[in-house]
Formats: sequence, C-alpha cells, structure tokens
Amino acid sequence: MPDTPDIPALRPDPIRATDDAARALARDLIANARFGALGVIDPETGFPAVTRIALGAGPQGGLWSLVSGLSAHSRALRADPRAGLLLGEPGPKGDPLTHPRLSLQVEARPLPHSDAGFDATRARWLADHPKARLYIDLPDFFFVEFMLLGGRLNGGFARAYRLSPADLAP
Amino acid sequence: MPDTPDIPALRPDPIRATDDAARALARDLIANARFGALGVIDPETGFPAVTRIALGAGPQGGLWSLVSGLSAHSRALRADPRAGLLLGEPGPKGDPLTHPRLSLQVEARPLPHSDAGFDATRARWLADHPKARLYIDLPDFFFVEFMLLGGRLNGGFARAYRLSPADLAP
Repeated sequence: MPDTPDIPALRPDPIRATDDAARALARDLIANARFGALGVIDPETGFPAVTRIALGAGPQGGLWSLVSGLSAHSRALRADPRAGLLLGEPGPKGDPLTHPRLSLQVEARPLPHSDAGFDATRARWLADHPKARLYIDLPDFFFVEFMLLGGRLNGGFARAYRLSPADLAP
Repeated sequence: MPDTPDIPALRPDPIRATDDAARALARDLIANARFGALGVIDPETGFPAVTRIALGAGPQGGLWSLVSGLSAHSRALRADPRAGLLLGEPGPKGDPLTHPRLSLQVEARPLPHSDAGFDATRARWLADHPKARLYIDLPDFFFVEFMLLGGRLNGGFARAYRLSPADLAP
C-alpha cells in the first residue's frame, strides 16, 4: 500500500501501559477460547491467509488446536510455523469493534501421534469438545500447540495494550 | 513446523468442484459482511497478525474497510498490501466450525481523502455504519478497498471450495 501523505497521524500512540486488568482479560480470553481466527503465510503465494480453527487447552493448559493435515492452514504451518491468532468473538448484539479481542503472535508445534502425551491431550480435548469424537481419530488429524510469543489486546476503541509472554501466562 | 511423517494424509483432497450454490454463498458472505478477521504480515517480525476490522460496501459495491492509520494492521498494509480476510462469523448457537466462512486473498488499496470518490464512499459507509460518525472524520482514519484475488469457502466439514475472482464478483 503506498504512503498516504495526506493522512497525517495526529492522535497520540493509542497503546496504554499494561496493567493487571489487561492481563486478566487476556488470560480469560485464552482460557475460554473454543475457536479463533488463525493467520498463516500461504506457502504458494506468500499472502497471509486467515481460517477458523477450534481451540482448547491441553492437559497442562496452554492453547491447542486439533487440525486436519489436509487443510490449507496445516500445509502452511508445515512450511512456516509462525502464525497469528485472533481470540474473542463478538456476541450477537452490540458493536463488534467494541468487543474485547486478543491478537496473539504464536509458533505452532505439532504433537505426533506417537508422543507420550498424546493420550492425555486427546482425552482433554474430547472432554472439552465432545463433538470432535466424529473426526478426532481420522488419520490426518493431529494436535498443534501454540507457543505464545506476545499479544495485542484491544478492549474497545482507544483501549489497546501490548502483552509479553509473561503477561499471558496463567 | 517439522514434518509429521507418522501422520499420513489418507483422505482424498476435500476440495469440491465450485458450483452456483458455492458462488452464491460466497457472494452473500461478502455482501453481508459487517466485520471480519484481517490477516497481514507484521513488518517488524514477519509473523502473520490477525485483527478484527469493520467491513462494508463502497458506492459501487466491493469490500471496504475504514481503518485508523495508527493501527498495527494499517502500518503493516503500508509495508505490504497483501492480506487475508476471514468472513462469516458464527452465531451464538451451534458448532462454530460448521458455520459457513470464506477465507479471501486480497490486496489493500487506500483511498486518499483527496480522491474524487471520497465523499460518496464516506456517505455510503455512514449509511451502513451510523456509529462510525464518532470517528470517521478523525484525521488518521481512512478507507481501504480490498481487491478480491481469490477465496476458499468452507461450508462445513468436508465442504470446501476454491473460488476465483470471477466466482466472487456479483
């Protein structure tokens, strides 16, 4: 996108100092996420691509997904594990842009079926996502853990915060 | 993400042949989008980053947003206009992963305040987003049109389609 020199940036930087309320809101969005928007880099085009994925916790918490190896996003993550995740879905009422959301910078780590922790991860996922029983054992499905590298919390208009991995840890 | 050689891809490619029903669903998701998840490449880190933005039509249709020049996503689009957009937000009930959604490959084009079409774009935006009156005239806000380069429609489990720009045009 070319520069837009006729559009000056006159307002001050809208990032606020991170406080305990911002940390608590971000951790709550992570702990309660059941789905989110995953951003990856399409290995064929280099474009960012955004898809909806299921989210949940692993046996020791954290942020996990169960994905199909046939999906475009899993092919992209095999080529480049760097990703973005948007959590915090707006409800049916009100302005979606005033609903709190968290944009996470993450790195995806797949969990092989042969890993010692696989059975506990599968059990935890099914406890939280009972409908996943329909496809969890298809051979192309696998678990991915998202390592949290940082985040930007938007609590509504002009309420923005930058969060470190320590801010995001429970 | 390293290869996961113990996870074979045994199911066939789940992409179906694009038909008129898929085209109609995709065009409907575009025409009715009021917000979506934007994926950009963070110019500082190279990571994909996903944020929620407002969406709407311009005077001649298309897919537009009104964004702040102070936002992380507009800084990213200035450095690289390639983006992804996820449309189709799940409702409050049912499985979010069975709700139809469209992952678009787009290129962002800013509309300078000095453009001859600015007033018509502003009027159309306010007609569809009356609450934007609170910030539409702040000097850092500007319109972006997303040129549609392609899309992937997911109509639910194993109902995936690839869509060309012609498939997406009304």
